[in-house]
Amino acid sequence: MRIGVDVMGGDNAPDAILDGAVGSLERIAPHDRLVLVGPRDVIEAGLKRHGVNNDDRIEILEATDVIAMDESPAEAVRSKPNSSIALLAAAAGRKAANPLDVVISAGNTGAMVAAAQMYMRRLPGVRRSGIAVVVPTFAGNVVLIDVGANIEPKPDHLAQYGVMGDIYARKIVGIENPRVALMNVGGEEQKGTADMKQARDMLRSISDLNFTGYIEGRAVFSGEADVVITDGVVGNVMIKLAEGLSEGIFKAITREVMANDPSMAERFGAIVKKIYAEHDYHEYGGAPLIGVNGVCIISHGSSVARTITNAIIRGKQFVECGVNKAVEERLATMNLQEMPA
Amino acid sequence: MRIGVDVMGGDNAPDAILDGAVGSLERIAPHDRLVLVGPRDVIEAGLKRHGVNNDDRIEILEATDVIAMDESPAEAVRSKPNSSIALLAAAAGRKAANPLDVVISAGNTGAMVAAAQMYMRRLPGVRRSGIAVVVPTFAGNVVLIDVGANIEPKPDHLAQYGVMGDIYARKIVGIENPRVALMNVGGEEQKGTADMKQARDMLRSISDLNFTGYIEGRAVFSGEADVVITDGVVGNVMIKLAEGLSEGIFKAITREVMANDPSMAERFGAIVKKIYAEHDYHEYGGAPLIGVNGVCIISHGSSVARTITNAIIRGKQFVECGVNKAVEERLATMNLQEMPA
Repeated sequence: MRIGVDVMGGDNAPDAILDGAVGSLERIAPHDRLVLVGPRDVIEAGLKRHGVNNDDRIEILEATDVIAMDESPAEAVRSKPNSSIALLAAAAGRKAANPLDVVISAGNTGAMVAAAQMYMRRLPGVRRSGIAVVVPTFAGNVVLIDVGANIEPKPDHLAQYGVMGDIYARKIVGIENPRVALMNVGGEEQKGTADMKQARDMLRSISDLNFTGYIEGRAVFSGEADVVITDGVVGNVMIKLAEGLSEGIFKAITREVMANDPSMAERFGAIVKKIYAEHDYHEYGGAPLIGVNGVCIISHGSSVARTITNAIIRGKQFVECGVNKAVEERLATMNLQEMPA
Repeated sequence: MRIGVDVMGGDNAPDAILDGAVGSLERIAPHDRLVLVGPRDVIEAGLKRHGVNNDDRIEILEATDVIAMDESPAEAVRSKPNSSIALLAAAAGRKAANPLDVVISAGNTGAMVAAAQMYMRRLPGVRRSGIAVVVPTFAGNVVLIDVGANIEPKPDHLAQYGVMGDIYARKIVGIENPRVALMNVGGEEQKGTADMKQARDMLRSISDLNFTGYIEGRAVFSGEADVVITDGVVGNVMIKLAEGLSEGIFKAITREVMANDPSMAERFGAIVKKIYAEHDYHEYGGAPLIGVNGVCIISHGSSVARTITNAIIRGKQFVECGVNKAVEERLATMNLQEMPA
């Protein structure tokens, strides 16, 4: 398998990315290939630092340009064909000679999405791709799709996300018969926009999907669903809010402990550490852009070495489990005629 | 001042509502009037329980019907004109002989919104009303508008929410020169839907508004803005998610403390209590539906007596501070001609 990694993406690039790539060498197969995309000198220096010389599982794809985190995605991809993100996606594209099976970037999310959509295109039958994040809640893992690739989805996009989220939850997250729900302002039938109601009706009509109806914000963290479908705006706000709020709460509690009962600090710190370890967003390495023709994993901007190693392992798993084949087959059985394009 | 309270609304109705109303008696003025809306026998029994007899500040408005929490709002308001919510809103409406200055309900939010819109109508110049919630973050209070009254706002609605949220933050929450931001999937200029961009441009053009641009989910809890404008779907998901997640985190930490270090439990419990007290969503008693011609406060379904007492005090403050007059005046100076209706 050929796995491409954007060496220049993320707040801790290039060091953490190279560390993570090297860290995966003992966990990938002898015939696997890591294709590191970035400036040759940076990559060679990083490999040398790790004492990795002439490992024939490593290839370098030279990229002389970088897309910054705050650049306008589509524009940057078009104007910087030699950026690590554009080259990475192109190397996984249909025009590539020996296309990459997996691409991974912790860089500009919008640019990675735009590049993947431009070069890799969509799986047959898929109308829009979506980013699926595994949220480690206290009631178990929840797959949230989409968190920002598609900010104005049509009802049929949301319905397809249900199928894609379901397959991802089964094959990668290991959830049997996932309960799939549609994000809304309340659980009642009459709630929501006309688009939401149409999406709900489409989801109900899909056979072999355990669709449970609407879900509201409160219930996402209490285990009422395994897959939550939403538009890219709501999903994006949800994961960022959850991240900011969790951090804020842990900080506030720690501050109070220090101020009121410093003798408790060490023991309390150990408990916080344990909870963090059990709800580790690094575990999945990143979020796949499901629906593209290939495997594209978008890692968090603050990825550390371990995140990238995990993204590589999960990317391999994504290919080996045949997620895309399953998506294609399931979508082919859906009555798309009834879904206005 | 005449303040109407829906005795039958909320999970703890009627007892907590009556307790809260009675609890406000020592804090309202001799000439204020509480109008309790619900079944006469229930109200009289509740007052008797508190030893309140013939207090001439209390009036009873008999309501023989109730709208349940899960009923379809608009339909319920239409089909149940004798419900406490419909009668409450009607008593504050323009056709009422001696209209209520404030109405408060912890019942079906959608029904209260629909009833207020139907009977109280809008302030001159207001295109849509919005629910403004004060979120007690670790970085201070943040006003979030709208959290569910308007699930498909147009750009001009969002722009008006900016003005209404600003006035509410200044006059009720006591924030000087509030920083007003628009919720989006990222802070960069090119992010978001066409509607968001149009709303942003409108907000920029409003003089005397400290509009700071887009804000993303993470930043809401880190103190980057005092007023956050959003559509009703995103806002609704945000507050419910924040509520569910905070509860989940505190529960998880408490569980871990009990499992790993039970000797710490009591002291840790005291710290949690202190944090809760400092971030008390009961403090504001509820969220005003700003923009209606009158004062309508929507309290949380799980309101306790203290919540209702606070809603009564805040409702009075809302009238006394002249929030509505300020909204009307500020909107009149906005160039609405440039905002497509």
